[in-house]
Parts: sequence; structure tokens; C-alpha cells
Amino acid sequence: MLADSGPQQSGFLVSRMAHGSEPSRGDTMNAPIDLLPRIARRPMPAAMLAALKAHFGERCSTAQAIREQHGRDESPFDVPAPDAVVFATSNDDVVALVALAQSHGVPVIPFGIGSSLEGHLLAVQGGVSVDLSRMNQVLRVNAEDLTVTVQAGVTRKQLNEALRHDGLFFPIDPGADATLGGMCATRASGTNAVRYGTMRENVLGLTVVTANGELIHTGSRARKSSAGYDLTRLFVGSEGTLGVITEITLKLYPLPEAVSAAVCHFPTIDAAVRSTIQVIQMGVPIARCELLDVHAVRAVNAHDHLGLREAPMLLMEFHGSPAGVQEQAETVQALTTDLGGEDFQWATTPEERTRLWTARHHAYFSALQTRPGCRAVTTDTCVPISRLAECINETVAEADASGIPYFIVGHVGDGNFHVGYLIDPTAPGERAEAERLNQLLVARALRLEGTCTGEHGIGLHKMGFLLDEAGAGGVALMRQIKHALDPGNIMNPGKIFTW
Amino acid sequence: MLADSGPQQSGFLVSRMAHGSEPSRGDTMNAPIDLLPRIARRPMPAAMLAALKAHFGERCSTAQAIREQHGRDESPFDVPAPDAVVFATSNDDVVALVALAQSHGVPVIPFGIGSSLEGHLLAVQGGVSVDLSRMNQVLRVNAEDLTVTVQAGVTRKQLNEALRHDGLFFPIDPGADATLGGMCATRASGTNAVRYGTMRENVLGLTVVTANGELIHTGSRARKSSAGYDLTRLFVGSEGTLGVITEITLKLYPLPEAVSAAVCHFPTIDAAVRSTIQVIQMGVPIARCELLDVHAVRAVNAHDHLGLREAPMLLMEFHGSPAGVQEQAETVQALTTDLGGEDFQWATTPEERTRLWTARHHAYFSALQTRPGCRAVTTDTCVPISRLAECINETVAEADASGIPYFIVGHVGDGNFHVGYLIDPTAPGERAEAERLNQLLVARALRLEGTCTGEHGIGLHKMGFLLDEAGAGGVALMRQIKHALDPGNIMNPGKIFTW
Repeated sequence: MLADSGPQQSGFLVSRMAHGSEPSRGDTMNAPIDLLPRIARRPMPAAMLAALKAHFGERCSTAQAIREQHGRDESPFDVPAPDAVVFATSNDDVVALVALAQSHGVPVIPFGIGSSLEGHLLAVQGGVSVDLSRMNQVLRVNAEDLTVTVQAGVTRKQLNEALRHDGLFFPIDPGADATLGGMCATRASGTNAVRYGTMRENVLGLTVVTANGELIHTGSRARKSSAGYDLTRLFVGSEGTLGVITEITLKLYPLPEAVSAAVCHFPTIDAAVRSTIQVIQMGVPIARCELLDVHAVRAVNAHDHLGLREAPMLLMEFHGSPAGVQEQAETVQALTTDLGGEDFQWATTPEERTRLWTARHHAYFSALQTRPGCRAVTTDTCVPISRLAECINETVAEADASGIPYFIVGHVGDGNFHVGYLIDPTAPGERAEAERLNQLLVARALRLEGTCTGEHGIGLHKMGFLLDEAGAGGVALMRQIKHALDPGNIMNPGKIFTW
Repeated sequence: MLADSGPQQSGFLVSRMAHGSEPSRGDTMNAPIDLLPRIARRPMPAAMLAALKAHFGERCSTAQAIREQHGRDESPFDVPAPDAVVFATSNDDVVALVALAQSHGVPVIPFGIGSSLEGHLLAVQGGVSVDLSRMNQVLRVNAEDLTVTVQAGVTRKQLNEALRHDGLFFPIDPGADATLGGMCATRASGTNAVRYGTMRENVLGLTVVTANGELIHTGSRARKSSAGYDLTRLFVGSEGTLGVITEITLKLYPLPEAVSAAVCHFPTIDAAVRSTIQVIQMGVPIARCELLDVHAVRAVNAHDHLGLREAPMLLMEFHGSPAGVQEQAETVQALTTDLGGEDFQWATTPEERTRLWTARHHAYFSALQTRPGCRAVTTDTCVPISRLAECINETVAEADASGIPYFIVGHVGDGNFHVGYLIDPTAPGERAEAERLNQLLVARALRLEGTCTGEHGIGLHKMGFLLDEAGAGGVALMRQIKHALDPGNIMNPGKIFTW
């Protein structure tokens, strides 16, 4: 995920599904603009608003600034604001809110910190945004079991701060300091996923308020279970469309005894990617393996004064025992050298590592500053590791030919990378061109047996791509589940697929 | 999972759900016997049978021996045989069969090799068993991506044989040489799960024939994805109740450069378990960590002439680089010694390792032979690792007090263990007592925040326990999904929960 970008507010491309017709392969991104206002908002009954005010008092806001803030995420879409925002502080609050919404047929949109990227939070049918950021208690650390239970509004940095004295950490790092509820909702991953997995692998159980206002618990604190349908993983990645996640039990990991980071530069992006492929194929348990293309390196140099050589770069991290880390690093160094890697440089002190990773996390923001006034259209494909070089090389050729400034960063150990096309928002031709390039990239990723989204989710932006990827039958099955669990279509309606 | 037991055929305890009423907490196992015959079988229309014969010819059998073989698994239930058995050889076969079953309202029960343990395969409402064992092609090895796609009837040993020359392996090892389709259906795990995860973590995608006879594909070959609901993990663990899994794409792993196994004996089972807890809490990436109690050690000694010291034992395996394996093993050896472990013995040759693991896989069968004519009632709880000593110690005290011979084996690195109560099937008091002990154990595991089943699944036997574990709300949600995806209740009806 690309981190730390500021909110972007003007209009943008939306696919045809947004106003009801089913998309067909390939037409997703060519339809122009301005479709969100045409979606029918559901009226907010006065009785519902009165009941909210009565129940939540000042924790229910209809102030325009608050509403607009909650109808926005890091996507480039226009803001359709919710009709009201409720700041929940307990499971009971969420139960009460959903029960009211159910009885009045009003949409409910869960909100963490607003860092999602695909329009997940936009109130396209109006309704109530339920802000979970005040449910920010770390409820229980079970250090002896390597588990923790948190409220959904706890952020990943807050969690790791709370764990610091237990010698434990939670590895999933999507860049932004997202809430763990939001990270569940989009099945987030990020830099450490190559070693530790994604939210899919690291959530043991959930507390969820279902669409009928019932509180249920999924999973347990056991590491594995065969007890019935995997409701935990049904809610992980459901983007708020099946219920409100209020509490999460997560796996934790002992802080590694030794950590070492290294940067290595390459003559071409192809050489960097081929080195990554070999590292993964050899089974090296690398903890992070991040690609920055020359444009991204230039941007972080300018922003963070890093003085890195301006060439494609891998930024790697190794976790383990001191001997294990050294062994991994030597293997990788030998391998990258064979493929033309140069300037293999170590960062063993925590300060130096922090400096490098901060730069990585600033890449998106840094890149935006290279073209004043620009906005980024970002992509999120993920392909099998052997197809990564082909996928990136063709993408680079297309981007270079287009003439639009861009940068590439990637969790390449997973086969996942992001292109940020830096467009001039006043030039409609650039927007359309960036979306055309994204469309070509997704089609390529699907042809290479990959996915349209490694970690950002579908939201509004990728509904057509999901149909291309999962097929009409797969999407129909998702829709059947949605209809069964949320027959009134109140949970974040209009996202992932059409009703 | 307990492996290699022979089929067991006479009547047994079934919970009340089996004939329709909803169970309440705790009554699951006290109700006596003989309920299966009282479940209403659905009539098999003559037109359906004629259509099957016409379509499948000799691959549709109604021979009694074939039918009985397919209405049985390794559970101790009576056999309700299906009305017919169809040997599928292609996706098209399964599509045709399910379409016919759908139009006639006839149950379809997927069958691999019949090694499940909780009554999953019993045709409690009649219908057609679809035998997938002839769909046994390894379709595609993508060594460079560490993925493989197989038909559902491929067994785990067959797969590993096919991978041998690629330097790769598939680690999930439930003991029995189960089909990978069956392993998906029960969310199987086994000895290597502590290091490599379970089927939940290792399935990338599926081909499924849904209840309406449509072929869908879930997931992709990418290592991660945020593209919509996680249909893959909805089908993994669904026990054939949502569709027929026909093809599976799995993660593979490079064969470790070095492998080392060790046995270590302990003065008490408590000391063995406490050693395990410390190994896991320290984050040692142990590949296998299996407990055998003194009864299990005696049984495998008698059966396989191992000459092991007759005391509680851990059987461990380490995977990695030669230096990494040595480092792990030294850490574990120091730690077990501190806790009273004795006779830490290495098995570094493949032959010696195979001998030990074969003995482990024979533990169930070996134990059965220690009491001629007996049958085993097996348990499958899994608890957070810190609660494992408490859980096992109380279980041992209850079992000792009962006087019924028993043995314990466990994937203790996961917190998962099995008690096998060796009962005399002619003595109804022993059956009831074994089920009472299991009930006490499950209640304890749930109190300790664990699960009633780590890897065997719910089937018929644990439907009441699932209600205790997931709650009425959780089970209701599973049922809503089932109703939405299989409104005619044709897919393995009567399993996991009541309709």
C-alpha cells in the first residue's frame, strides 16, 4: 500500500456499475466521470436521525465538515458525504446503531482512519458513517500465546507501541497507520507479508455486529480449527459489506533476535526483479523485499536527503538469529551480485533502518512532490513471482511510451507492485490515459494468473476488474452471500459488486 | 489426525441434531445411539437413476458393496449407504451429476478415499456419492512459482512423489494418505502445520461445482489478493456442504536443505508439554513437534519394534540450512534438558527419520492392537499453547480415573492433541463413558479459549459442540450461507449444522 498521501477531493472516473448496469470486460475505466452524483441516495428518515441524536447525543454529528471528512478516503473520487457520523465507543453502540439502521433501511459505513484507496468509504447511497477510532483499546495481550485482542479502532503503530515491552510485534505494515479494523476489512498486507503473511493469515478471530444488529464471535484463540465455515476469513476482506468488525484477535510474533536491512542497486529494473525472483525461489525467508524504481529513488532522495544512487533499488530486511540473518544476507548478496547488483549496503543500526523504511513509506508522498499540483492514480496488481519481470517490464514500456510521469514501488517478494501515475488533474487526457494504462496492466496481470488487487481491495474502483477476475459465477456467489447476510443492503452498499 | 485405522462399522452415539431438533449446550453426547436410521432418507427418483445410468454407464454403480463402502468413513457410525455411486473423471462429469441432482432434489456427497473421522461421508438422507478418486491428475507444477494445480482425487503422497524431482514438497500431512480434495473439505493439517500452516493457509485457489451445477474458479496463482470475498476459504472446511471441489491450486515449498529429527523423553507428560510451550514461545521455527504419551509409546514399540524408552516423548523435526537446523536443535535441546528431558536422540539419516515417522503414523493402529477387539473414540481439541498443559493434565486425570484404556498423541506445537479411548464395543457403558470424557474435554477446551476440532471437522459427531463454540448467532450465519448457496439442500445434507 502507498502511504501517507493527503486526501484528494475532486471528481474522477468511476465504472458503470456505480449506477446500476452490469459492466462487461474491459469497459470499466473508459466511461467518463461524474457518475457518483447520479447514484440514488436513500433518504435519511427524520425518525432515524432523531433516534440517533437521542441515543448518541453529541457523539452523533451532522456537521458538514465532519460528514465530508467521513465520506472520503485516499481514493481520487468526489466525496459523497454520509448524512450523519456516529462515534462509537463500545460494541453496544454499534449494535444499537445497526439495529436502528436496519429498522429504517439506512446504510451503515464503517470508518477507521480513512486511509483506504479505492473509494470504500464514500457514502454513495447516503447513510451513517460509524467512526470506530474511539474504540481504540488494546483489550488483552496474551504474550505466552502470541495473541492479542484489540478493538477495531486500534492502529498498527499504536499496537506495536503497546507490545514493545513484551518483546513482541505485529508485522503487517501497509504503510499508512491504518486501524486494524480497516486492515481486516481490506485484507491488508504490505512490506512484511512476504515473511509473515497478510491479514488473511494473521487474524484468529473477530467480534462482528452483523447486518441484523447481532453481536457474533468468530474463531477462537487456538492457532487452527476445523469448526464449521471460516466466518473469520469471510469477514476479512469484506470491506464493511457484511457487518461491522468491532474486535480482532491477532497472531503476534517474538521480536527477532537480530534484524538487518540492506539496499542494493541494479543497472535495470529487470535485474532487480530477477534477483527477487531468485531469492523467493530459493526459499530464503526474507522479511521484506521492496522494489523502488529510479523515479521513486529520485523522489525519496529529494524528500528525505538519502543520497541513494539513482538507479533501481531493492530494499531488504532479514529477521532471525544473528547467525541466521547473516546466512540469509550472504545468500542474497551472492545472488544479487551474480545478477548485476551493485553497492550492496548494510543498515544494521535501528536508526539507519528506520531512516530507510521511513523513506520507503514516504515514497508516495515524495513522488507527489516531484510534480507540483499532480495527483497519483495508483495500481495494485499481484502476479505469480515467475511472471513478475514480464509484468513489470511491459508496464514500464507502456508507461514510458505514454509520457506521463510515474514511479513504481512494490512488495516484489509477493509479486505485488504499485505504479503511481502522476497526472495533472486539470488535464482530462492524462486521467483517461492513466486509467487506460491501469486497465492494460490489470488485463496483463489476469492473463499472467494474478489478481487485480494484492492488498487495496475492490471498493468502487475495481468492481469491473473483479468481474473479469472472479467471473460472473464467482461474483454471483459473492452476491448471494451478501443478499443472505444483509437482505436490506444496509452494510456499505454499492461496494465490491452491484446489488 | 489419527491415521491408518481400519473402517469401523457398528452403531454409535449421534447427537440429537441428527433427527432435527436443535441441541442445547451439553446434551450432545449423552443421547444414546441408533439415530441415523431414523433420519428421513429422500427417495431416489427412478428417473434420476435412469439418467445417471444413461450418462455415466458403468461409472454409475448401485452394487451394495460399492454403496456401503461409500457410506462409510473412519468414524464409528453405522453406514447409511448412498443410493448410487458415480465415479467422476472430469469437471464435466461433476457438473452433469450436480445438475441432475439439483433437478431431482437428490443429495450429492463428495468422496475422496474415505479417511474422514466424524461421519462426513454417511448418506444420512440417501443420494449419490460422487467418488473423485479417478480425478487424480497432477495438472500443472509451476516449480518457479512454488505452486501446483491438482485434481481433487490426488492424494498427498501421490503429490509428493510427483514433486520429488523438482526439489519441492507439499507439507500438509494429516497422517492418512487422504485426497487433497478431502483435505480441503475438512481444513486438514497434521504434523507439519506448526511450521507450514494448515490447508487454510496453503490453498491458493479452487475449481468448484456449485450446488446449481455451475463451475466456478476461486483465487488465482498470486500469493495474495484483496479481490472480493474469500470464496477459497469459504469452501476450505465446508465439508462438501456448499459444492464439490474438483481442482485445487496449492502452495509448495523447496525441500529443506537440511532435515533433522530428534526424540526426547520426559519424566512426566506435563514436562513434555511444558517444553513444547517454551519452544513455541521462543519462536523456534520447529517443523514438527509431536507428543506421544507413555501408552502410545508402548503401542508403537510393540507394533514397530522401536525399542523406545517407555515414557512420554516428543518427536521433533527441524528444517532449514545445515547451520540453521543445528542452531534450532541446540536451542531445543538446552530447553528440554532444563525441563527434565532425557535421552535427546538424533535421527539424521532419512531411513531413521522415516522409521520414526512411520511409527508415529501407526500410533492409532498400534494402539488399537493393544486391546483386541476394541474401537477407538477419538478427540480433537486444540487450545492456545499456554493452556495446553492444564488441558492435557486434567484430561489425563479424568481418563486415568475412568479406567478405560487410552492413549494420547498430539500436534502439540499447535496446541492440538488427540485422545483415543480404546473401548470394548460390546460394552455400552464404555462407549457412553468415552463420550462423557470427550464432552468434558471439549467443554474444557472451549473454556480455555480453544476449539472442539483442530483438524477433523464437525461432520455428524460435533454438531452440538459447534453450537457451543460458535454460538447460535455464528451457526445461524453459517446456515444462512448454506441456504443461499444450496437452497435445495442437496450438498452433503445433514452435516455441520441442522438445516
